[in-house]
This record gives sequence, structure tokens and C-alpha cells, in this order.
Amino acid sequence: QRTGYPEVIYGSGKSAKQIVGIVKAMKDSQKSILATRVEQSKADEVLKELPFLKYDAVSQTLTLKDKERVEVGNIAIVTAGTSDIKVAEEAAVTAEIFGNQVTRIYDVGVAGIHRLFAKLDVIRQANVVIVIAGMEGALTSVVGGLVDHPVIAVPTSIGYGSNLGGMTPLLTMLNSCSSGISVVNIDNGFGAAYNASMINRLISEEHI
Amino acid sequence: QRTGYPEVIYGSGKSAKQIVGIVKAMKDSQKSILATRVEQSKADEVLKELPFLKYDAVSQTLTLKDKERVEVGNIAIVTAGTSDIKVAEEAAVTAEIFGNQVTRIYDVGVAGIHRLFAKLDVIRQANVVIVIAGMEGALTSVVGGLVDHPVIAVPTSIGYGSNLGGMTPLLTMLNSCSSGISVVNIDNGFGAAYNASMINRLISEEHI
Amino acid sequence: QRTGYPEVIYGSGKSAKQIVGIVKAMKDSQKSILATRVEQSKADEVLKELPFLKYDAVSQTLTLKDKERVEVGNIAIVTAGTSDIKVAEEAAVTAEIFGNQVTRIYDVGVAGIHRLFAKLDVIRQANVVIVIAGMEGALTSVVGGLVDHPVIAVPTSIGYGSNLGGMTPLLTMLNSCSSGISVVNIDNGFGAAYNASMINRLISEEHI
Amino acid sequence: QRTGYPEVIYGSGKSAKQIVGIVKAMKDSQKSILATRVEQSKADEVLKELPFLKYDAVSQTLTLKDKERVEVGNIAIVTAGTSDIKVAEEAAVTAEIFGNQVTRIYDVGVAGIHRLFAKLDVIRQANVVIVIAGMEGALTSVVGGLVDHPVIAVPTSIGYGSNLGGMTPLLTMLNSCSSGISVVNIDNGFGAAYNASMINRLISEEHI
Amino acid sequence: QRTGYPEVIYGSGKSAKQIVGIVKAMKDSQKSILATRVEQSKADEVLKELPFLKYDAVSQTLTLKDKERVEVGNIAIVTAGTSDIKVAEEAAVTAEIFGNQVTRIYDVGVAGIHRLFAKLDVIRQANVVIVIAGMEGALTSVVGGLVDHPVIAVPTSIGYGSNLGGMTPLLTMLNSCSSGISVVNIDNGFGAAYNASMINRLISEEHI
Amino acid sequence: QRTGYPEVIYGSGKSAKQIVGIVKAMKDSQKSILATRVEQSKADEVLKELPFLKYDAVSQTLTLKDKERVEVGNIAIVTAGTSDIKVAEEAAVTAEIFGNQVTRIYDVGVAGIHRLFAKLDVIRQANVVIVIAGMEGALTSVVGGLVDHPVIAVPTSIGYGSNLGGMTPLLTMLNSCSSGISVVNIDNGFGAAYNASMINRLISEEHI
Amino acid sequence: QRTGYPEVIYGSGKSAKQIVGIVKAMKDSQKSILATRVEQSKADEVLKELPFLKYDAVSQTLTLKDKERVEVGNIAIVTAGTSDIKVAEEAAVTAEIFGNQVTRIYDVGVAGIHRLFAKLDVIRQANVVIVIAGMEGALTSVVGGLVDHPVIAVPTSIGYGSNLGGMTPLLTMLNSCSSGISVVNIDNGFGAAYNASMINRLISEEHI
Amino acid sequence: QRTGYPEVIYGSGKSAKQIVGIVKAMKDSQKSILATRVEQSKADEVLKELPFLKYDAVSQTLTLKDKERVEVGNIAIVTAGTSDIKVAEEAAVTAEIFGNQVTRIYDVGVAGIHRLFAKLDVIRQANVVIVIAGMEGALTSVVGGLVDHPVIAVPTSIGYGSNLGGMTPLLTMLNSCSSGISVVNIDNGFGAAYNASMINRLISEEHI
Ligand SMILES: Nc1ncnc2c1ncn2[C@@H]1O[C@H](COP(=O)(O)O)[C@@H](O)[C@H]1O
Ligand SMILES: Nc1ncnc2c1ncn2[C@@H]1O[C@H](COP(=O)(O)O)[C@@H](O)[C@H]1O
Ligand SMILES: Nc1ncnc2c1ncn2[C@@H]1O[C@H](COP(=O)(O)O)[C@@H](O)[C@H]1O
Ligand SMILES: Nc1ncnc2c1ncn2[C@@H]1O[C@H](COP(=O)(O)O)[C@@H](O)[C@H]1O
Ligand SMILES: [Mg+2]
Ligand SMILES: [Mg+2]
Ligand SMILES: [Mg+2]
Ligand SMILES: [Mg+2]
Ligand SMILES: [Mg+2]
Ligand SMILES: [Mg+2]
Ligand SMILES: [Mg+2]
Ligand SMILES: [Mg+2]
Repeated sequence: QRTGYPEVIYGSGKSAKQIVGIVKAMKDSQKSILATRVEQSKADEVLKELPFLKYDAVSQTLTLKDKERVEVGNIAIVTAGTSDIKVAEEAAVTAEIFGNQVTRIYDVGVAGIHRLFAKLDVIRQANVVIVIAGMEGALTSVVGGLVDHPVIAVPTSIGYGSNLGGMTPLLTMLNSCSSGISVVNIDNGFGAAYNASMINRLISEEHI
Repeated sequence: QRTGYPEVIYGSGKSAKQIVGIVKAMKDSQKSILATRVEQSKADEVLKELPFLKYDAVSQTLTLKDKERVEVGNIAIVTAGTSDIKVAEEAAVTAEIFGNQVTRIYDVGVAGIHRLFAKLDVIRQANVVIVIAGMEGALTSVVGGLVDHPVIAVPTSIGYGSNLGGMTPLLTMLNSCSSGISVVNIDNGFGAAYNASMINRLISEEHI
Repeated sequence: QRTGYPEVIYGSGKSAKQIVGIVKAMKDSQKSILATRVEQSKADEVLKELPFLKYDAVSQTLTLKDKERVEVGNIAIVTAGTSDIKVAEEAAVTAEIFGNQVTRIYDVGVAGIHRLFAKLDVIRQANVVIVIAGMEGALTSVVGGLVDHPVIAVPTSIGYGSNLGGMTPLLTMLNSCSSGISVVNIDNGFGAAYNASMINRLISEEHI
Repeated sequence: QRTGYPEVIYGSGKSAKQIVGIVKAMKDSQKSILATRVEQSKADEVLKELPFLKYDAVSQTLTLKDKERVEVGNIAIVTAGTSDIKVAEEAAVTAEIFGNQVTRIYDVGVAGIHRLFAKLDVIRQANVVIVIAGMEGALTSVVGGLVDHPVIAVPTSIGYGSNLGGMTPLLTMLNSCSSGISVVNIDNGFGAAYNASMINRLISEEHI
Repeated sequence: QRTGYPEVIYGSGKSAKQIVGIVKAMKDSQKSILATRVEQSKADEVLKELPFLKYDAVSQTLTLKDKERVEVGNIAIVTAGTSDIKVAEEAAVTAEIFGNQVTRIYDVGVAGIHRLFAKLDVIRQANVVIVIAGMEGALTSVVGGLVDHPVIAVPTSIGYGSNLGGMTPLLTMLNSCSSGISVVNIDNGFGAAYNASMINRLISEEHI
Repeated sequence: QRTGYPEVIYGSGKSAKQIVGIVKAMKDSQKSILATRVEQSKADEVLKELPFLKYDAVSQTLTLKDKERVEVGNIAIVTAGTSDIKVAEEAAVTAEIFGNQVTRIYDVGVAGIHRLFAKLDVIRQANVVIVIAGMEGALTSVVGGLVDHPVIAVPTSIGYGSNLGGMTPLLTMLNSCSSGISVVNIDNGFGAAYNASMINRLISEEHI
Repeated sequence: QRTGYPEVIYGSGKSAKQIVGIVKAMKDSQKSILATRVEQSKADEVLKELPFLKYDAVSQTLTLKDKERVEVGNIAIVTAGTSDIKVAEEAAVTAEIFGNQVTRIYDVGVAGIHRLFAKLDVIRQANVVIVIAGMEGALTSVVGGLVDHPVIAVPTSIGYGSNLGGMTPLLTMLNSCSSGISVVNIDNGFGAAYNASMINRLISEEHI
Repeated sequence: QRTGYPEVIYGSGKSAKQIVGIVKAMKDSQKSILATRVEQSKADEVLKELPFLKYDAVSQTLTLKDKERVEVGNIAIVTAGTSDIKVAEEAAVTAEIFGNQVTRIYDVGVAGIHRLFAKLDVIRQANVVIVIAGMEGALTSVVGGLVDHPVIAVPTSIGYGSNLGGMTPLLTMLNSCSSGISVVNIDNGFGAAYNASMINRLISEEHI
């Protein structure tokens, strides 16, 4: 926990029992708890032992929130479609646990670009923008061209055929003609929020 | 020439001598001539023998235009960047030889989306829109979402690294979240124009 | 619905409840309804709530057809094999909902090319031809060489081994030696029909 | 030379001097000589030392033909385009050196399928058919559906963009919906002829 | 049935009912029946209706054998491992239905090359050798170097990790340093046998 | 120039004449000029016309620096090898033109990890760390684990064989087990610096 | 058993019955038995027949250990994460059956590099180091730079998205900037241990 | 030089001047010098300054050999073809500089397997065997099955078409059905020799 961040549990491939064990060990030193990639059935088992945790089925997270943590900064989380929301919520829950304000702007893909423009002012107010998109991921380039703050792009595995499990939006985002975009792994909502949170913390630290 | 279109010479891999031969053979039956993918030095050789042809170094085409052909319909050719113009001009010259009106809207990539919006009315007046983009090819999805006519997308090999010689914009275009887009091979300006021209001809034929 | 087309519901990844909600919201403004990629069990749930919809198990579509819509134009839908029929029917149902006449020519793959020739006159009468093929997708090039109207090619994921989930026929279609072919994503019957329908509408619009 | 075939020199990556050395060593035991992949300049050097060899610039071969060898059997070599001819000639020269009759049917690609049908009788008379095609390689499936004898397919690296240096026709050929097709490496005219020749020899051997 | 071969039913993706229908339709004109890729449960259903068919669970084939057909020629079917046997038996059953003698030489992979050498005489007596291998497919090159007759190679999807579902042995076989090898699709035992059978038939035809 | 940043010229594919034209047009509105990807010979031509520009052959940049711009913030640029320096210098020059302090820590790849540890204090003082690595790109994960500030990773095309032109370090960086890393395209030093600069500006803006 | 090693049974794709048969056949000539890739249910069946075997559910191995075999040499098995342990245990059990001492150092990935350094002395004492890592596999390069003995790297399929089923750490390991690393297939713990054991045996043989 | 090995200069991408500088700096602390990947023209420049170095054009190495170093152990270097020799010589020169005896067995590919068997006794006497092969790389599996000592496999970029620049033999080697094989990067003769040398040193160290 050297970094001032709560240590995060990556639930995928861990048993309920293992997660319970890690949470118990953490609880003394950490006020917040975050476990990602925990499916419903596994979460049910964990909650029997640790009823103080909160499970969110969309983001597949188990959390304990440090109520005293002051929310600083602002992160906009923007998705292209509704299927991307589960990745977006992994990002949102992560960002909130790490003490950031989150603004959700969902389902504003470029097929109907007026929906994006309607939300542009809100998006521009954020310090950092996380853009989450599957299919061809073109939303990233449009947002990147419209905002002056850092954009962190998350490709999702939503799509079929030549989408190749998310490789297509990943490549799209890496080759964007807009400047100011950096990219994390397919479906990695957590990673994007971690990066965004680091930027927010840099800003608030410097304030002091 | 069963299709009513001039037979087109694909110059790549053919010698100047071979091209001269084919043009001479065609001249009796065709009022228009089009040869694509002819580089400058090869064109120079051909022009010595066939000075009535016109060479255009940007589109790398040799042409003879049938002056009597009436221009019908309208095709908008839209590019993301300036480096895509050589592919765009292959499309433009092809469309013109086949008797279409062409409107060129170049360098309106999504990094500065206001440039695209400034040209939207013009684009919407065309029967068919050809969108030509390299890098990540996101322009296609934006245009596809804004126009109600068929969009034919041409990925270009402009880019570097994970662009993979144009495979990235190709995949982007195939996976577009906008409806109404179909795709041709990387750098295939000729193919896009051929398709667009077929659509235009269907429209005018039906008029009669 | 700016485009004059009914808004279409992409059922994949949506719950029956979500689909019901969207249909109810649409019903006031749209005379036709189309939902694609709805499997049997999900459809059953939707039909309980909305018994006026029609479910088709082959195309996996839920539809409500505007009886007053006049069918204009003609689209030929051609498949190589019988396994491609589910993609073909997604295309056919889409085209019909959008007000097009559809001619189905199924199972005329190039392994027995006489079957294709037997249907050539019918295919040539259509304004647009949709060619749907898995395996190696060679049918596209043959049809493209035989008809003078636009061909929209749909690769399917039918095949095994080095077929790579449809990437092989996709690449085949993009590299076709016949002119006049454009391509949509693997298994995207809907997309092909949407494009074909746009072309048909252009033709009939101009008539007026 | 256990196989009864002349040992063949693969010229790529060998110096003129090395080729001269190998030919000299072979000359005592072999009546025929074949070296493939020898470019003009290298050939010129070799010919200075070994003027009895014949160089063919299209197939890039150096040969010495055993005049007494009786030509048996018949191999049809069919190409889609004119750019495939250099691979076809590598096959043809190889087949001839190995004592086969060769029938060349070039430039009969599926974009103009009537040219193929015009030659069908000739193709059907061969024991084995070698089909050589770049771009999307669809010719293979059409020929495979029309002839009852073994078809050996050679993809070529002719094409651009998503052709991927011949990987597209290679995949097409491997996934053909026609039976009776087997495939060799991209541009491997030699390999196809070697296989075809083995089949021809089996036939004539059995006669005795 | 123009080719003199029984028409073959590709069972994958067909229902039991569809298979029954096709067999009934065929029975009048064909003395032999072959359906491949039929899993146990589907076969059970078919057999209820058509008890005269024989099901083989290893090769996943349903067959009716023409007892009067004379077996001519000889095809050796060689596998690297025991997991490749299901593909080998698809080849073997196909070859037998088409009237060929089959010699099975299984589990002679190069990790213990003495097992291959022990069977070399038998392999060399066949007109055609089908080599079936997964993992890295090296057996093909070794056999190709040791026999003078045509080798048809079948890569299998046996393996894991960087085997990539059989793409590794496929590439191995296409790039073999031994001459006389041609390749069919991954797991395509049927296709290899069809090719081998064509060669055998050519030999016996010529005899007459 | 809406973003407060100087507009940057991407020199690749532009002629010297075109670059001169753009610079002249910019000069009135921008105090700083930056052109990237300008090779020596092209730069020489530009400098003849615009002698006030400075050319740097390592980073392949042409610059005009706004002397009054105050340098704020600090960006550490870390490379694995010496061959990565040209990409690093594209990043460094970009960051400096945009008004950032830059600390260069070159050639500290993980093969000799003590060299990295010797520089750790310096690296940790930066607001943002740009890690630039080719080969396998492992340096990124190590740095990411050791610093608490955002890391922007740039894969380079340095390597051979299965490096695949930089795809290997790109994939490495996207899959890093360390948190806090985001990635830009292969060799895109400019992009990394642009992102880092945006973060720095956010920090200093907020101060006011 | 020419190699002095117990013959090993690769359980994947073999039935319980087949495994029982092989073990029975081996038991006379081999004091040790090792079967890998045996899942729980299959193992249960085998154990009913052969209760003297020991099943280990983590490594998925069935073993019979030759108690008299003297353990020589020392192999360090190092993993990046806890999810890699199942591959590590396949390696560990293999190495032990072959008579090697094994030191397990698990969960020392580069995200927290101090954990690795804490174990460095132990790792350096081994003759051979097996490094097992998924995600991006960077641990291999770090260990390779810190030890002077051979490192055998095993990529694992742990990861998601652009990890591509282990292809990413495989490529990372092959391109390592540290010398002294060689690589085996994804998840191939057995193969790494076999290699390491061979090296250990060479050392002890030479002693005599 | 912590490892007891001479530090090696990787010449690719370094100027003659840089190489001269590094050699001069090394000369005081190292008795042996090795620079790899130095092409002829660069070597000529270096030799003008440092005439005591020896250049070998086949392996593209510059060396200074420590005459007092005792040669211990034995490494067999086996190649499939003659084109692989340049990679083999990079391995051989590296192994010799590091104090190993080297036995060269070149051009024993599996197309003519008797050549390999003729050399088997010599190969089996080595402690470690380096197998170097391009095309399909099958030689590795054959050697791996025949020797009981560690085999280090080096794929080469020799081949064409679907060889994919050496990716095919790389995949072949990683998926070998023979045990005891580990793999290094394409064309990495240096890396194989480094590993082999480490094993040899372990053996001789233990002797003392
Ligand atoms: N730039 C181009 N890209 C792709 N196809 C082309 C191009 N130019 C011409 N073609 C096609 O190539 C055919 C002529 O090919 P060829 O017989 O080789 O000259 C024409 O009928 C066109 O269909
Ligand atoms: N064009 C070619 N493509 C592939 N293999 C060839 C070709 N020409 C010759 N070969 C093969 O290469 C072998 C000779 O290889 P080498 O010993 O390197 O000269 C011959 O026996 C043939 O099997
Ligand atoms: N080295 C570079 N790599 C990627 N993008 C760049 C580079 N240099 C400049 N750019 C971007 O390219 C834009 C200019 O592109 P263009 O209009 O083609 O000159 C700039 O605004 C930057 O966003
Ligand atoms: N041919 C080669 N292939 C791969 N790595 C090499 C080669 N030659 C030298 N090396 C490695 O590169 C390191 C030196 O890299 P550098 O500092 O860039 O000169 C050496 O210590 C070796 O580990
Ligand atoms: Mg921006
Ligand atoms: Mg649209
Ligand atoms: Mg056509
Ligand atoms: Mg046939
Ligand atoms: Mg052979
Ligand atoms: Mg960090
Ligand atoms: Mg080391
Ligand atoms: Mg061995």
C-alpha cells in the first residue's frame, strides 16, 4: 500500500475462500476494500462471511467504502453503447473507491453524434476523460478531438466477426488521429480508472 | 465491355509496352481509356507512343476522356487527411471517366470535427459518399452516422506501427457502429468509385 | 428515425425486459419494428408481453410489419450453402421490413456452378445482389463477374480450421478480382440489407 | 537422386559460383538440370561458365533438358491473371524437365468466367490440373467444381492491402468448398509441378 | 454425381431430420452412402429411421457400403499420435467407401522415429500416403523425404498454446523442405482421402 | 490552436515545400513551431527557406522555440536501450516545445537492472514518466511497479524476428501486471509527450 | 525409455481406461510413473483401479514415486502470480519425479519487485531457474538479468484481451533483452522441467 | 561482466564509431571481445581503427580471442540447410569466444534424413545440441527425439510465402512433440550459444 491507494483484489481465478482470506488480512490496514471481476455466485459466498461488503452485479465488484475519504477531482466516463456499461462501471466503482468524483455519460456512440454533443460541456469539465467503446471504437477519436484534457481509452470486447474480441477497437484507439489519447487493455476498466485517479491525485497534491 | 463501362487497365506489374499494346487494342471499341497504378517513369514511356493520353501524377492514372459522355449523378469523395489524397484521386478520376460528377472534400478528419460539419450540406447532396481514411479510419463512422445515403469506405495504408499497413482502418470500417457502410480493399480507390458509379447508373437508368 | 428507416433493435446482449421496453417506447412513432439477434428463449419472453410481434427462429428476428408500406425495388439474396441461410434470412427480413422486394436464391455455391447459372437471369433482374458465403467465399467473385449491378458481400463464420471464424471469406471478398463488390462484417446480414435498401430507395426517390 | 527425379537446385540465396559448382558436380550423374529462382544477373554469370544451360527470364530457371526423355501424361497449368504467369512458368518448366506434357491456359480468372469455360475441354483432358491465382484465388474453387481430376492449387503473392502477401488466396484455397483440391506454399510453382509429376509417373508406371 | 463418386453429406450443422431426408433422396441413385461429422446423438436419431446405415463413433461417419465395388489401389494413412486417429478414420472410411484399399499406420510420430522406420516398407507400397499430424506436424517432412509417391498432409487441431488450433502444423506442412507434399485444411480427413482416391482412380482408369 | 498548444506538423509524407508553406502560415499565430518526422535531406531544403528553424537529426524534428514560455512541471523520459533514443528525443523535443522540463534517463533496460535503481530517485521526482522500450518492453512493468505517478509507455520497433515490428513490446505494455500504465502507438514519442504535457498543464492550471 | 527417464503419460484426450492400461503396461519396467493433464474426475476413475497412484489436483498429475531415487541438483521454480501456480506445480512434480530438488518461489511478479529481491539468494543457488509468468511475462527478463544460470521460461495463458491466450508473454520471453533465456510452449510446465532436469543430469553425470 | 562472460556488443543500429568506442572501453577489463551483427562495410571502418580484431563475413562478427582460455565442453551446431549457416556461424563464433568446443554438422535437413543419421554419433557426444532451421523447422523434432541432451532450437528467417519471416519454424519448434527442446528468437544464433555455454560452464564448474 506504498502508493497511498488501497490494495485491490483481482477476483478472477480466486476462490471465494481466498477472497475472504485476503479481505480479512487487509481490513486492519485499509479503510477501503475493492475486489474486481467477482461473479454473482462467488460474491454470494463471500458476503455470507463478510456481510459489510457491498456487491454490485453490473461492475462485478465487492467494495467497502471509506466514508471519510473526501472526493476530489472529476473523471468523466463516456461509453459508446449500453453493452460497454459493465466495463464503465468497473472503472466508475474503482475511481470512486479511490476518492474521485465520477460523471457518467453513457451510450453516446458516433452513430448518433448529436447525443455526444449534447453532453460535451459536462465532459469538458472533467480533469480526465475515460472513453469506453467496443465495435470499432471510433468514439475515442471524436472525443479526443473535442476535449483538451487527457483521454484514457478502453477498448471493449463487444462486437463480433472481424472485431476479434476487442482487437479492432484496441488498434483503432492506438492509431487515433487525435492527440492526447492513451490506451489500456481490452475491457480493463480498472486500469483506466487507476490511471485517471493518479492524474487527479497529482493535481490535488500540488494544490497543497 | 459487356457492362457498359470502359474496360480498365490495372497498370501495376505491366510494362509500358504492354500498356501501350492494350490501349491500342481498346481504342477502336472504347471512347474512354483508364489505366490505374502507373508510376511517372512508366507513364512517360507510354506517352511517347500515345501522346493523346493524359497522365495525372497524384492519382497515377493515364486517361482518355470521352468528351460526349454526359455527367450524371454526384459522388462525394471525403478524406481524413492530406496523405489520403492519392487514393482519393484514383477514385475521383475513375468516377469521372465513368461519367459521374465528383465533389472533393479533403482533409476533414475527426481530430478537428468542425471541418467536417462545415462541409456536411455538400456531402449530404451526393447520391453516394466515398470515405477515404488511414490511421484509425474513424471518419467513416462519423460520416455514416450523419448521412442517409450509401457510404463506401476505403481504408488507406497511411499510418505506422500497429496500423499494420492499413489493416487497422480496414477493421475499423468493417466494424462500424453506423449503418449504411460497406468496405473495399486497402487503397482501392478504383473499386470504391466503380461501386459508386454503378449505384449512380442504376438511379439514372431508372429515370428513363 | 431521421433516416426514414425504422430504428432497429440489436438484441444481442439485451435482456427480454430491455427489448420489451424499447419496443413499447418505439411503438408510438414507428409503424414497423425490427429486432435482430434474438434467440428463441428470449423471444418467448418478449412475446408474452408483446404478442403482436412475429418471431422467426431462422433469422432470429422479432418483427412488426407496416402493412401499408409499398414494396419497391428488388434485392437478390444469394447464398453458397444451406448453413449460410440464417445470415441470409437476417438480410431478407431486414430488407422486407424496410420495404424492398426480396428474391431468395439459396445453395448455389461454386462447387456445383451449374446451379448458379440456372438462376442467373433471376439474379440479374435485381437492382442489388447480396452474396452470402462462408468457407472460402469464392461465390462472390463469380457473381460479381456475371452481374452489372452492385454486389454487397457478407462473409459468414461457416467453416473450420484455417477458416478462422469467417476471416478467410472476408479476406477473399475484399480481394476479389471482380469489380463492383463491397463488403460488410462477418455474419452481418442486417448491414448488407441496410445498404441494399438505401440503394433501392435512392432509385425510387429519384423517380418522383 | 533416389527418386528417379533430377535433383533440383534452389537458386535463391546461392551465389553464381555455388550454382556453377553444383551443376558441375551433378552433370555426370544427371541428364537433366534444373535450377529455380535464379535472377537475370546471376544467370548471366552462370552462363559464362556453363553456356550449354538455357536461361528463361520469366520462370527464372536455368535448365538442361534430357532430349531422350519421353513426355508422358499431361498437366494443365491454369492461371487467373497475367501477373501469375511467372509462377506458372516455374511450374511449367519444372513439369517439362520431369518429362510431362504441359498445357498452358493463362488469364482465365473468374472476373470473366466465359474465358474459363471456353477452355474447359482442354483442361478436362489433363490428368492433373495446377491452378495458380493471386488476389482472392477464387478460380481454384471454380475449376475444382468443374473437373474430376486432382487439382493442385498455388496461391501467388499478387495483390495488395489485405491480400497479405498471398495469405488470402492461400486461405481461400485451403477452405475451398470444392473437393479434390490440395495446396502448396505461396508462389511455389516448383512444388505443384513436382506433385503433379509424381501423379503422372504413378499412372505411367502402372501401365507397364 | 457427375464425378462417379458417391455424393457425400457433410453432417455438421444439419439436423438428423435433414440427413434422413437427403439419404432417402440419394438411395435410389447411389449404391454407397457417406455422411461425415455426425455426432453420436444425431446418429442415433438417424439410425432409428434408417437402420441399414452403419455408424462409426471414432470417425463420426454414417455409411452404406456398396458390396460390389472392387477395391483398387492402396492408400497409406499415417498418424503422428493417437489423438489424430479420429481425423485418420474420417480419411480411412472415406477412402474405403470410394473403393480404395487402406493401410493404417498410426502413432509413428517423430519423437520416436524408429517406429516410423519399422513401417517404412509398408508405407512405400502405397500409391499415395496421407500424413496426419497435430502439434508441430514434423512427421510430414520426414515421410515426404522417405517416400517417392505423392504425400497429402492433414494438419490436426491437436495441441495447445501456440499451436493456434492447428495453424502451426498447417504452416509446417506448407513450408516443408521435402518435395512431393500438398496440404488440405485442418482436420480435413475427408478432403485428403478424396484427393488420394482421385489419384488412385486415375491409375486404375489408365489401366483399362 | 484551440487547445493552447502549438499546432504540430507531421512531416512524414509531406514535401519540403509543403512544410515551408505550413510553417509560414503558422508563424503569425504561433510563437513555437514543431515539425516531426523530417529526415535530414528534407530538413536541409526547409532550412534554406526558413533558416530560423533548428533541426535535430536524432529526433528528426524542426523547431522554433518560444523563449518566453516558462518551463513548468517535470517529465522523466526513460529508455531501455540506446536504439530507443531517437523515439525518446521525439518525445523530449515535443515536451520541451510544449513548456515542460524534461529529465532524460537513457539505456536502463532490465538486463542490468542496477542501472535503473541508480536512477530511481530522479525518476520518482517527475510528475509523469514516459517509458520507451523495444525488444520485449519489460522495462515498463518494472518502472510501473516502482513509481506512484502515471507512466506512459511507448513501444519501439527495435528488435527482430518475433518482435514483429514493435507489436511484441506493444502487447507487453498493454498487458502489464503493474497498475498505472497507459500506452501509445509504436514509435509514437510525440504522442506520449503530448499526453504527459496535458497532465502537467492540468497540475499547473489548478494551482492558479 | 532409452533416455533413462520414466516414460510420461500425456493425459489430455486419453480416457481413464486408456491411462489405466498404459500404467499397467509400464509398471513392470519403470519404478516411477507420471501422468500429466489429468482432471479430477478422470483421476478418480483411475485411482479406483490403481490406488497406489497419488493424485495432485493443482498440478493435475498422477504419480508413483521411486523412493530410492536420490535427489540431485536444484531447480528453482519462480512464478509471477498465484494463477500461474498450476503450471508451476506441473513443472515441480515433473522435476521431482525425475529426481531433482525443487525450490518453489511463487508470486514474485515485477509489480512488487521487492518480493523478488527478497528471494534472490535462494534463486541464485539453483542450477537452473524456471520462470513461469502470464499477463506480460516481464518477470523473465528481470530474473534473466539477475542470475548467471540458464533460465527456462514458461508463458502461461493467464490474462485477458490482448494477452491472446498467452501469445503475449510467449513473445515477450522470446524477445527478452536479457541473455540466457530459452522458451517452451504456453502452459508447458512439463517441458520446462524436462529440460531443466536434463541439465541437472548432465552436471551430475559428469561428476562421476 | 558480473557473469564471468565477456560483455557482447550488439552491432545492429550502432555506428562504426560507436563500436570502436565501446571496444576501446572494454579492452582494459576484458580479454575477449565479441561484436555481432556487423556488416562488411561497418567492419571495414572499425578494422581501420582496431586492426587487432578479426572480422568474419559469414557470421558478421568482430572478435578478439583470449588465447589462454581453455576450451571445455562440447556444443554440436546442426543446420537443416546451407542458407542457415550464417545464423549457425553466429552461434559457433559466440560459443568459441565463450570457451566452448564446437562441432559443426551442417545441411542435414529431414528431406534427406540419411545425412542426419550419418552424423548421429557425433551429435550425441555433445553436451548440448543447437538445431538451426528455417522453412518448416522439422529437423528440431527429429534431433530432439534422437538425443538425450538438451536441444536449443533456433528458427531462421529462411523461406518464403507462408513462412512469415521465420514465424513458421518458430511455432514448429515451440510445439515439438519431442521433449527436451527449448527455443530462442528467430535468427538468434548468439542467444542459443549463450544458453548452451551456460550449461557447459555449469558442468565444468561442478567438476572442480
Ligand atoms: N487500382 C485498381 N485496383 C484494383 N483493381 C483495379 C485497379 N485498376 C483496375 N482494376 C481492375 O483490374 C481489371 C484489369 O486487370 P488486368 O486485366 O490485369 O489489367 C479491371 O477491369 C479492373 O476491374
Ligand atoms: N522454387 C522452389 N521452391 C521450393 N523448393 C524448391 C524450389 N526449387 C527447388 N526446390 C527444392 O529445394 C531442393 C534443393 O534445395 P538446396 O539443397 O537448398 O538447393 C530441391 O531438391 C527441391 O526440393
Ligand atoms: N510523430 C508524430 N506521430 C503521430 N502524430 C503526430 C506526430 N507529429 C505530429 N503528429 C500529429 O499530427 C497532426 C498534424 O497532422 P497533419 O495535419 O497531417 O500535419 C498534429 O496535430 C499532431 O496531432
Ligand atoms: N546477435 C545478437 N542477438 C541478440 N542479442 C545480442 C546479440 N549480440 C549481442 N546481444 C546482446 O546484446 C547485449 C548488448 O546490447 P547493446 O548494449 O545494445 O550492445 C549483449 O550483452 C547481448 O546480451
Ligand atoms: Mg484532445
Ligand atoms: Mg448513414
Ligand atoms: Mg460485376
Ligand atoms: Mg473437382
Ligand atoms: Mg517424397
Ligand atoms: Mg506505478
Ligand atoms: Mg542471466
Ligand atoms: Mg531428446
